[in-house]
Amino acid sequence: MVHFSDSLSRLLAELQKLPGVGEKTALRLAFHLLKSPDNAAALADSLRDVMSRVRFCSVCFGITEDDPCRFCSDARDDGAICVVEEPQDLLAVERTRAFRGRYHVLQGALSPLNGVTPDRLRVAELMKRLEGGGVREVVIATNFTVEGEATALYLARMIKPLGVRVTRLAHGIPLGSDLEFVDAATVQRALEGRSEL
Amino acid sequence: MVHFSDSLSRLLAELQKLPGVGEKTALRLAFHLLKSPDNAAALADSLRDVMSRVRFCSVCFGITEDDPCRFCSDARDDGAICVVEEPQDLLAVERTRAFRGRYHVLQGALSPLNGVTPDRLRVAELMKRLEGGGVREVVIATNFTVEGEATALYLARMIKPLGVRVTRLAHGIPLGSDLEFVDAATVQRALEGRSEL
Repeated sequence: MVHFSDSLSRLLAELQKLPGVGEKTALRLAFHLLKSPDNAAALADSLRDVMSRVRFCSVCFGITEDDPCRFCSDARDDGAICVVEEPQDLLAVERTRAFRGRYHVLQGALSPLNGVTPDRLRVAELMKRLEGGGVREVVIATNFTVEGEATALYLARMIKPLGVRVTRLAHGIPLGSDLEFVDAATVQRALEGRSEL
Repeated sequence: MVHFSDSLSRLLAELQKLPGVGEKTALRLAFHLLKSPDNAAALADSLRDVMSRVRFCSVCFGITEDDPCRFCSDARDDGAICVVEEPQDLLAVERTRAFRGRYHVLQGALSPLNGVTPDRLRVAELMKRLEGGGVREVVIATNFTVEGEATALYLARMIKPLGVRVTRLAHGIPLGSDLEFVDAATVQRALEGRSEL
Protein backbone atom coordinates (compact mmCIF):
# COMPACT_ATOMS: atom_id res chain seq x y z
CA MET A 1 0.00 0.00 0.00
CA VAL A 2 1.43 3.36 -1.04
CA HIS A 3 1.78 5.75 1.88
CA PHE A 4 0.03 9.02 1.12
CA SER A 5 0.02 10.93 4.36
CA ASP A 6 -0.07 9.97 8.04
CA SER A 7 -3.54 11.29 8.70
CA LEU A 8 -4.94 9.61 5.59
CA SER A 9 -3.33 6.30 6.54
CA ARG A 10 -4.96 6.53 9.96
CA LEU A 11 -8.34 7.26 8.39
CA LEU A 12 -7.91 4.28 6.04
CA ALA A 13 -7.03 2.05 9.00
CA GLU A 14 -10.12 3.22 10.91
CA LEU A 15 -12.39 2.72 7.90
CA GLN A 16 -11.07 -0.80 7.42
CA LYS A 17 -12.29 -1.72 10.90
CA LEU A 18 -15.86 -1.33 9.62
CA PRO A 19 -17.68 -4.51 8.59
CA GLY A 20 -17.38 -5.24 4.88
CA VAL A 21 -14.77 -2.53 4.27
CA GLY A 22 -11.43 -3.65 2.86
CA GLU A 23 -8.50 -1.71 1.45
CA LYS A 24 -10.18 -0.71 -1.81
CA THR A 25 -13.49 0.32 -0.26
CA ALA A 26 -11.65 2.30 2.42
CA LEU A 27 -9.76 4.18 -0.31
CA ARG A 28 -12.99 4.87 -2.20
CA LEU A 29 -14.72 6.14 0.96
CA ALA A 30 -11.72 8.25 1.99
CA PHE A 31 -11.37 9.95 -1.39
CA HIS A 32 -15.11 10.52 -1.53
CA LEU A 33 -14.93 12.24 1.86
CA LEU A 34 -11.88 14.28 0.83
CA LYS A 35 -13.86 15.55 -2.14
CA SER A 36 -16.79 16.65 0.01
CA PRO A 37 -15.36 18.21 3.18
CA ASP A 38 -18.84 19.24 4.37
CA ASN A 39 -20.00 15.63 4.37
CA ALA A 40 -16.85 14.53 6.16
CA ALA A 41 -17.32 17.14 8.88
CA ALA A 42 -21.01 16.25 9.22
CA LEU A 43 -20.14 12.56 9.49
CA ALA A 44 -17.52 13.21 12.17
CA ASP A 45 -19.96 15.43 14.09
CA SER A 46 -22.82 12.97 13.93
CA LEU A 47 -20.53 10.13 15.03
CA ARG A 48 -19.51 12.12 18.12
CA ASP A 49 -23.12 13.13 18.66
CA VAL A 50 -24.44 9.57 18.54
CA MET A 51 -21.75 8.26 20.84
CA SER A 52 -22.44 10.95 23.43
CA ARG A 53 -26.25 10.74 23.29
CA VAL A 54 -27.15 7.14 22.62
CA ARG A 55 -27.21 4.74 25.57
CA PHE A 56 -28.94 1.51 26.55
CA CYS A 57 -32.51 1.71 27.81
CA SER A 58 -32.55 0.62 31.46
CA VAL A 59 -35.76 -1.38 30.92
CA CYS A 60 -35.40 -3.19 27.57
CA PHE A 61 -31.66 -2.64 26.88
CA GLY A 62 -32.33 -1.42 23.39
CA ILE A 63 -30.54 1.76 22.33
CA THR A 64 -32.11 5.13 22.98
CA GLU A 65 -31.41 8.78 23.69
CA ASP A 66 -34.03 9.00 26.44
CA ASP A 67 -34.24 6.51 29.26
CA PRO A 68 -36.60 4.64 29.27
CA CYS A 69 -36.85 4.41 25.48
CA ARG A 70 -40.05 5.16 23.61
CA PHE A 71 -40.83 1.46 23.14
CA CYS A 72 -40.88 1.17 26.94
CA SER A 73 -42.66 4.46 27.68
CA ASP A 74 -45.20 4.71 24.81
CA ALA A 75 -48.73 3.35 25.22
CA ARG A 76 -48.27 -0.24 24.09
CA ASP A 77 -49.47 -3.66 25.16
CA ASP A 78 -47.74 -4.47 28.48
CA GLY A 79 -48.93 -8.08 28.24
CA ALA A 80 -46.50 -9.12 25.51
CA ILE A 81 -42.71 -8.90 25.37
CA CYS A 82 -40.74 -9.64 22.22
CA VAL A 83 -37.22 -10.88 23.00
CA VAL A 84 -34.51 -10.15 20.42
CA GLU A 85 -30.73 -10.52 20.33
CA GLU A 86 -29.65 -7.06 19.19
CA PRO A 87 -31.15 -3.56 18.85
CA GLN A 88 -31.22 -3.93 15.06
CA ASP A 89 -33.42 -7.03 15.46
CA LEU A 90 -35.87 -4.89 17.40
CA LEU A 91 -35.99 -2.63 14.35
CA ALA A 92 -36.66 -5.60 12.08
CA VAL A 93 -39.70 -6.59 14.15
CA GLU A 94 -40.93 -3.03 14.65
CA ARG A 95 -40.74 -2.40 10.91
CA THR A 96 -43.52 -4.95 10.37
CA ARG A 97 -45.96 -2.89 12.50
CA ALA A 98 -47.42 -6.27 13.46
CA PHE A 99 -46.27 -6.25 17.08
CA ARG A 100 -47.56 -3.66 19.56
CA GLY A 101 -46.12 -5.04 22.80
CA ARG A 102 -42.86 -4.30 24.60
CA TYR A 103 -39.34 -5.42 23.73
CA HIS A 104 -36.38 -6.93 25.52
CA VAL A 105 -32.90 -6.91 23.97
CA LEU A 106 -30.62 -9.72 25.19
CA GLN A 107 -27.53 -8.06 23.68
CA GLY A 108 -26.33 -11.36 22.27
CA ALA A 109 -27.14 -15.05 22.09
CA LEU A 110 -25.94 -18.02 24.11
CA SER A 111 -22.64 -19.37 22.82
CA PRO A 112 -20.87 -21.28 25.60
CA LEU A 113 -17.86 -22.06 23.38
CA ASN A 114 -17.30 -18.32 22.97
CA GLY A 115 -17.83 -17.69 26.66
CA VAL A 116 -21.32 -16.24 26.24
CA THR A 117 -23.23 -17.79 29.13
CA PRO A 118 -26.68 -16.61 30.37
CA ASP A 119 -25.10 -14.22 32.89
CA ARG A 120 -23.43 -12.35 29.99
CA LEU A 121 -26.84 -11.66 28.46
CA ARG A 122 -29.72 -9.59 29.81
CA VAL A 123 -31.56 -12.73 30.94
CA ALA A 124 -31.75 -11.86 34.65
CA GLU A 125 -33.25 -8.48 33.74
CA LEU A 126 -35.86 -10.22 31.57
CA MET A 127 -36.79 -12.63 34.37
CA LYS A 128 -37.17 -9.69 36.75
CA ARG A 129 -39.56 -7.97 34.32
CA LEU A 130 -41.61 -11.17 34.08
CA GLU A 131 -41.69 -11.72 37.84
CA GLY A 132 -43.34 -8.31 38.12
CA GLY A 133 -46.42 -10.04 36.63
CA GLY A 134 -48.83 -8.76 34.00
CA VAL A 135 -47.03 -10.42 31.08
CA ARG A 136 -49.07 -13.17 29.42
CA GLU A 137 -46.82 -13.91 26.40
CA VAL A 138 -43.14 -13.77 25.53
CA VAL A 139 -42.44 -13.85 21.78
CA ILE A 140 -38.91 -15.11 21.24
CA ALA A 141 -37.42 -13.55 18.11
CA THR A 142 -33.78 -14.54 18.50
CA ASN A 143 -32.01 -15.36 15.23
CA PHE A 144 -32.58 -18.69 13.51
CA THR A 145 -28.98 -19.73 14.04
CA VAL A 146 -27.61 -22.43 16.34
CA GLU A 147 -26.95 -19.79 19.02
CA GLY A 148 -30.33 -18.12 18.55
CA GLU A 149 -32.22 -21.43 18.70
CA ALA A 150 -30.30 -22.51 21.81
CA THR A 151 -31.13 -19.19 23.44
CA ALA A 152 -34.81 -19.62 22.55
CA LEU A 153 -34.93 -23.11 24.10
CA TYR A 154 -33.10 -21.91 27.21
CA LEU A 155 -35.46 -18.96 27.67
CA ALA A 156 -38.53 -21.16 27.15
CA ARG A 157 -37.35 -23.50 29.90
CA MET A 158 -36.76 -20.55 32.24
CA ILE A 159 -40.00 -18.71 31.51
CA LYS A 160 -42.63 -21.45 31.25
CA PRO A 161 -42.55 -22.25 35.01
CA LEU A 162 -43.76 -18.67 35.59
CA GLY A 163 -47.01 -19.56 33.80
CA VAL A 164 -46.21 -17.22 30.91
CA ARG A 165 -46.92 -18.35 27.35
CA VAL A 166 -43.71 -18.61 25.30
CA THR A 167 -43.92 -18.42 21.50
CA ARG A 168 -41.36 -18.40 18.71
CA LEU A 169 -41.49 -16.75 15.27
CA ALA A 170 -42.64 -19.24 12.62
CA HIS A 171 -40.19 -21.09 10.43
CA GLY A 172 -41.19 -21.31 6.79
CA ILE A 173 -40.73 -20.22 3.22
CA PRO A 174 -39.86 -16.52 2.79
CA LEU A 175 -42.34 -14.47 0.74
CA GLY A 176 -41.54 -14.33 -2.95
CA SER A 177 -39.42 -17.49 -2.82
CA ASP A 178 -39.05 -20.02 -5.59
CA LEU A 179 -39.61 -23.30 -3.78
CA GLU A 180 -36.89 -25.05 -5.79
CA PHE A 181 -34.22 -22.73 -4.38
CA VAL A 182 -35.25 -22.97 -0.71
CA ASP A 183 -33.03 -25.25 1.40
CA ALA A 184 -34.47 -28.60 2.44
CA ALA A 185 -34.42 -27.90 6.19
CA THR A 186 -36.56 -24.81 5.69
CA VAL A 187 -39.03 -26.68 3.46
CA GLN A 188 -39.22 -29.43 6.10
CA ARG A 189 -40.04 -26.87 8.82
CA ALA A 190 -42.60 -25.25 6.52
CA LEU A 191 -44.25 -28.65 6.00
CA GLU A 192 -44.33 -29.33 9.73
CA GLY A 193 -45.84 -25.91 10.34
CA ARG A 194 -48.41 -26.11 7.50
CA SER A 195 -51.78 -24.47 8.17
CA GLU A 196 -55.39 -24.91 6.91
CA LEU A 197 -56.45 -22.82 3.93
CA MET B 1 -37.78 3.28 8.22
CA VAL B 2 -38.35 3.07 11.97
CA HIS B 3 -37.16 6.16 13.81
CA PHE B 4 -34.78 5.18 16.59
CA SER B 5 -33.32 8.43 17.84
CA ASP B 6 -32.54 11.80 16.26
CA SER B 7 -28.78 11.49 16.48
CA LEU B 8 -28.83 7.96 15.08
CA SER B 9 -31.05 9.05 12.20
CA ARG B 10 -28.59 11.82 11.38
CA LEU B 11 -25.69 9.36 11.47
CA LEU B 12 -27.59 6.99 9.17
CA ALA B 13 -28.29 9.85 6.76
CA GLU B 14 -24.60 10.84 6.74
CA LEU B 15 -23.46 7.25 6.20
CA GLN B 16 -25.87 6.87 3.29
CA LYS B 17 -24.11 9.72 1.49
CA LEU B 18 -21.06 7.46 1.15
CA PRO B 19 -20.63 5.64 -2.17
CA GLY B 20 -22.10 2.14 -2.14
CA VAL B 21 -23.82 2.60 1.23
CA GLY B 22 -27.60 2.17 1.29
CA GLU B 23 -30.08 1.89 4.14
CA LYS B 24 -29.10 -1.61 5.23
CA THR B 25 -25.34 -1.05 5.06
CA ALA B 26 -25.72 2.23 6.95
CA LEU B 27 -27.60 0.39 9.71
CA ARG B 28 -24.93 -2.31 9.86
CA LEU B 29 -22.15 0.27 10.05
CA ALA B 30 -23.98 2.36 12.66
CA PHE B 31 -24.69 -0.59 14.95
CA HIS B 32 -21.12 -1.80 14.55
CA LEU B 33 -19.87 1.63 15.64
CA LEU B 34 -22.34 1.76 18.54
CA LYS B 35 -20.93 -1.54 19.76
CA SER B 36 -17.34 -0.28 19.66
CA PRO B 37 -17.33 3.30 20.97
CA ASP B 38 -13.52 3.48 20.81
CA ASN B 39 -13.53 2.79 17.08
CA ALA B 40 -16.28 5.34 16.55
CA ALA B 41 -14.34 8.01 18.43
CA ALA B 42 -11.14 7.16 16.55
CA LEU B 43 -12.98 7.33 13.23
CA ALA B 44 -14.48 10.72 14.07
CA ASP B 45 -11.07 12.02 15.19
CA SER B 46 -9.23 10.78 12.14
CA LEU B 47 -11.90 12.26 9.85
CA ARG B 48 -11.43 15.68 11.47
CA ASP B 49 -7.68 15.20 11.38
CA VAL B 50 -7.58 14.36 7.68
CA MET B 51 -9.84 17.24 6.74
CA SER B 52 -7.71 19.73 8.66
CA ARG B 53 -4.33 18.43 7.46
CA VAL B 54 -4.78 17.19 3.92
CA ARG B 55 -4.72 19.76 1.12
CA PHE B 56 -3.90 19.88 -2.58
CA CYS B 57 -0.25 20.03 -3.59
CA SER B 58 0.40 23.39 -5.28
CA VAL B 59 2.55 21.71 -7.94
CA CYS B 60 0.80 18.48 -8.97
CA PHE B 61 -2.63 19.00 -7.30
CA GLY B 62 -2.53 15.59 -5.70
CA ILE B 63 -3.44 15.42 -2.03
CA THR B 64 -0.79 15.87 0.62
CA GLU B 65 -0.11 17.09 4.14
CA ASP B 66 3.06 18.95 3.14
CA ASP B 67 3.21 21.33 0.22
CA PRO B 68 4.78 20.47 -2.20
CA CYS B 69 3.97 16.77 -1.80
CA ARG B 70 6.64 14.10 -1.64
CA PHE B 71 6.07 13.08 -5.26
CA CYS B 72 7.00 16.64 -6.23
CA SER B 73 9.86 17.12 -3.74
CA ASP B 74 11.51 13.66 -3.69
CA ALA B 75 14.41 12.87 -6.01
CA ARG B 76 12.58 11.58 -9.08
CA ASP B 77 12.87 11.93 -12.85
CA ASP B 78 11.89 15.52 -13.73
CA GLY B 79 11.79 14.61 -17.42
CA ALA B 80 8.53 12.63 -17.25
CA ILE B 81 5.10 13.67 -15.98
CA CYS B 82 2.26 11.19 -15.57
CA VAL B 83 -1.13 12.88 -15.92
CA VAL B 84 -4.04 11.31 -14.02
CA GLU B 85 -7.63 12.33 -13.32
CA GLU B 86 -7.82 11.90 -9.55
CA PRO B 87 -5.44 11.44 -6.60
CA GLN B 88 -6.48 7.79 -6.28
CA ASP B 89 -5.35 7.22 -9.89
CA LEU B 90 -1.93 8.53 -8.89
CA LEU B 91 -1.89 5.80 -6.23
CA ALA B 92 -2.81 3.17 -8.82
CA VAL B 93 0.20 4.13 -10.97
CA GLU B 94 2.57 4.56 -8.02
CA ARG B 95 1.62 1.13 -6.69
CA THR B 96 3.21 -0.46 -9.78
CA ARG B 97 6.64 1.03 -8.88
CA ALA B 98 7.15 1.18 -12.65
CA PHE B 99 7.05 4.97 -12.96
CA ARG B 100 9.67 7.18 -11.30
CA GLY B 101 8.77 10.55 -12.80
CA ARG B 102 6.50 13.32 -11.52
CA TYR B 103 2.70 13.43 -11.47
CA HIS B 104 -0.02 15.88 -12.40
CA VAL B 105 -3.58 15.47 -11.16
CA LEU B 106 -6.23 17.05 -13.40
CA GLN B 107 -8.93 16.70 -10.72
CA GLY B 108 -11.42 15.43 -13.26
CA ALA B 109 -11.89 14.67 -16.94
CA LEU B 110 -13.40 16.66 -19.78
CA SER B 111 -17.17 16.31 -19.91
CA PRO B 112 -18.68 19.30 -21.75
CA LEU B 113 -22.24 18.03 -21.26
CA ASN B 114 -21.69 18.15 -17.50
CA GLY B 115 -20.04 21.55 -17.72
CA VAL B 116 -16.51 20.24 -17.22
CA THR B 117 -14.50 22.27 -19.73
CA PRO B 118 -10.67 22.51 -19.76
CA ASP B 119 -10.71 25.59 -17.53
CA ARG B 120 -12.41 23.51 -14.79
CA LEU B 121 -9.46 21.10 -14.79
CA ARG B 122 -5.82 21.71 -13.85
CA VAL B 123 -4.84 21.94 -17.53
CA ALA B 124 -3.45 25.48 -17.44
CA GLU B 125 -1.24 24.49 -14.49
CA LEU B 126 0.04 21.48 -16.46
CA MET B 127 0.85 23.63 -19.49
CA LYS B 128 2.73 26.05 -17.25
CA ARG B 129 4.82 23.20 -15.84
CA LEU B 130 5.64 22.05 -19.38
CA GLU B 131 6.50 25.53 -20.60
CA GLY B 132 9.16 25.63 -17.89
CA GLY B 133 11.04 23.13 -20.10
CA GLY B 134 12.96 20.03 -19.09
CA VAL B 135 10.05 17.63 -19.63
CA ARG B 136 10.60 15.18 -22.48
CA GLU B 137 7.55 12.93 -22.02
CA VAL B 138 4.01 13.22 -20.73
CA VAL B 139 2.38 9.86 -19.93
CA ILE B 140 -1.38 10.30 -20.07
CA ALA B 141 -3.06 7.93 -17.62
CA THR B 142 -6.60 9.29 -17.62
CA ASN B 143 -9.31 6.65 -17.32
CA PHE B 144 -10.30 4.55 -20.31
CA THR B 145 -13.77 6.03 -20.40
CA VAL B 146 -15.27 8.37 -22.99
CA GLU B 147 -14.35 11.36 -20.81
CA GLY B 148 -10.86 10.05 -20.08
CA GLU B 149 -10.15 9.32 -23.74
CA ALA B 150 -11.43 12.74 -24.79
CA THR B 151 -9.20 14.36 -22.18
CA ALA B 152 -6.21 12.36 -23.44
CA LEU B 153 -6.80 13.47 -27.04
CA TYR B 154 -7.29 17.08 -25.96
CA LEU B 155 -4.08 17.09 -23.92
CA ALA B 156 -2.11 15.46 -26.74
CA ARG B 157 -3.21 18.21 -29.12
CA MET B 158 -2.22 20.88 -26.59
CA ILE B 159 1.14 19.38 -25.60
CA LYS B 160 2.60 18.09 -28.88
CA PRO B 161 3.25 21.61 -30.29
CA LEU B 162 5.63 22.13 -27.34
CA GLY B 163 7.84 19.37 -28.75
CA VAL B 164 7.12 17.08 -25.80
CA ARG B 165 6.49 13.38 -26.42
CA VAL B 166 2.94 12.39 -25.41
CA THR B 167 2.21 8.73 -24.61
CA ARG B 168 -0.86 6.85 -23.39
CA LEU B 169 -1.11 3.71 -21.24
CA ALA B 170 -1.56 0.62 -23.43
CA HIS B 171 -4.96 -0.86 -24.10
CA GLY B 172 -5.08 -4.64 -23.92
CA ILE B 173 -6.11 -7.78 -22.10
CA PRO B 174 -5.84 -7.57 -18.29
CA LEU B 175 -3.48 -10.09 -16.68
CA GLY B 176 -5.15 -13.32 -15.64
CA SER B 177 -8.06 -12.83 -18.05
CA ASP B 178 -9.94 -15.57 -19.81
CA LEU B 179 -10.00 -14.34 -23.40
CA GLU B 180 -13.57 -15.55 -23.93
CA PHE B 181 -14.88 -13.18 -21.27
CA VAL B 182 -13.05 -10.05 -22.45
CA ASP B 183 -15.23 -7.59 -24.39
CA ALA B 184 -14.71 -7.36 -28.14
CA ALA B 185 -13.53 -3.74 -28.15
CA THR B 186 -10.72 -4.59 -25.73
CA VAL B 187 -9.66 -7.63 -27.77
CA GLN B 188 -9.67 -5.45 -30.90
CA ARG B 189 -7.40 -2.88 -29.21
CA ALA B 190 -5.15 -5.69 -27.97
CA LEU B 191 -4.87 -7.02 -31.53
CA GLU B 192 -4.02 -3.58 -32.89
CA GLY B 193 -1.40 -3.14 -30.18
CA ARG B 194 0.12 -6.64 -30.54
CA SER B 195 3.87 -6.90 -30.04
CA GLU B 196 6.68 -9.25 -31.21
CA LEU B 197 7.52 -12.19 -28.98
